[in-house]
Amino acid sequence: MTSSNPDYAFLHKLADAADAKTMQHFRSGYEVDNKLDAGFDPVTIADRSAEEAIRAVLEAERPDHGIIGEEYGRTRDDAENVWVLDPVDGTRSFICGTPLWGTLIGLRTNGKASQGIMSQPYNSERFWGNCEEAFMTGPLGERTLKTRSCASLSEAIITTTEPSLFTETERPVWDAICAEARLTRYSTDCYGYAMVAAAGFDAVIETGMNTYDILALIPIIEGAGGFVTNWTGGNAADGGQVLATGDKRLHDELLTKLASVAA
Amino acid sequence: MTSSNPDYAFLHKLADAADAKTMQHFRSGYEVDNKLDAGFDPVTIADRSAEEAIRAVLEAERPDHGIIGEEYGRTRDDAENVWVLDPVDGTRSFICGTPLWGTLIGLRTNGKASQGIMSQPYNSERFWGNCEEAFMTGPLGERTLKTRSCASLSEAIITTTEPSLFTETERPVWDAICAEARLTRYSTDCYGYAMVAAAGFDAVIETGMNTYDILALIPIIEGAGGFVTNWTGGNAADGGQVLATGDKRLHDELLTKLASVAA
Repeated sequence: MTSSNPDYAFLHKLADAADAKTMQHFRSGYEVDNKLDAGFDPVTIADRSAEEAIRAVLEAERPDHGIIGEEYGRTRDDAENVWVLDPVDGTRSFICGTPLWGTLIGLRTNGKASQGIMSQPYNSERFWGNCEEAFMTGPLGERTLKTRSCASLSEAIITTTEPSLFTETERPVWDAICAEARLTRYSTDCYGYAMVAAAGFDAVIETGMNTYDILALIPIIEGAGGFVTNWTGGNAADGGQVLATGDKRLHDELLTKLASVAA
Repeated sequence: MTSSNPDYAFLHKLADAADAKTMQHFRSGYEVDNKLDAGFDPVTIADRSAEEAIRAVLEAERPDHGIIGEEYGRTRDDAENVWVLDPVDGTRSFICGTPLWGTLIGLRTNGKASQGIMSQPYNSERFWGNCEEAFMTGPLGERTLKTRSCASLSEAIITTTEPSLFTETERPVWDAICAEARLTRYSTDCYGYAMVAAAGFDAVIETGMNTYDILALIPIIEGAGGFVTNWTGGNAADGGQVLATGDKRLHDELLTKLASVAA
């Protein structure tokens, strides 16, 4: 079992702590009206309680490591090792009951993503990696992840969470990319990145990302043989404009197309 | 167990036959390039073999019933009871590895939808109903389905599979509806309808539907207390322009908004 690796065992331990919280609230509270703007809707409770659970394990077992979390901000974030957490990535999927949300737990070492796990507990799916190798487990069992070859955009299946997230200057470039791609899908959040690693999608193109939206996914996609950079081809660990692909040829083609709007 | 109802037991038997075939091919063949236009990509094999499996059970156990299937067309479709089949609804989700596709098996009795089941075997989820009641089973166990109350579009979470499916005249109406809705999601296929029944979405609005895209879902949504009509408020069993909601107030509001483009 690949998860007998001590690093992986710890990633799974953190994911276990989060899953116990998120699953208490997924598809709960559907009897009552579910207000997005209320302070304590189910997804907010899930988000906060899952991050608290992950932080409790980290504080007990990795007290010298830093933490950056979507819900509770930064703790010792100048440490050599910093955990980067998005307890519920895809809150809109969570709200709608679609199982494409996930818990993202990544480790940043000296500024670079080094390990990461994504957990989708409704499906009992996990994806994890360390930039060198990546694995998933789920209803079909455990397997090694390997991205798909894709020589060019015209053959590519691409995704983004929502076209409206692109800025006014970025949007025409996205639209032109879409028009050339074989197929485009939406509303995928972290699941789209996992499916790049698992050879379902060829590329994800997003903008306005936070570090906690992407850091955990980098070691999974790179471990599966894929590529994650910002739109200038640099380190995507801090978020911003992100491009993730399964094939270097497609990556280079998309970087060229995105160059005019790369910040 | 609700599935001890003889009608439901037969629906599940048909779904079992399909699941055995679809699950052989979901996320298979990812090592090789997956050509959408090739005759025998995994989703085509899944589609055909699942419909064959359902038809084999129907021919053996309901020989006087008719069948309308996406893959193999019409057999005795003037019968009082006609089974309406979409072995893989959401072929694009299937191709990308996202578990939002499903097998749709519906019964049309004297022109109206009377029973239906949707199966999503990767998640071990099933949704079924008979217009009077509806149920689901999945990772959280079995439960009765009940749509969510939603007084108006401004409170609604809505979905459609792809905005580009709307015709040139329909599209501005969709865009205006989106602008007023609380939240819009895409790429949901049959899963969006299931989540209306399960109180995740408030409405699905689609166009250009075939009877096999919608018939099985009508008894599930109606059984959960929801509403499915065409855009003129009539029977949606034949497809076309379809509106599905969880609350009559929202349904009426949306019918009014859609009236100018209702065929």
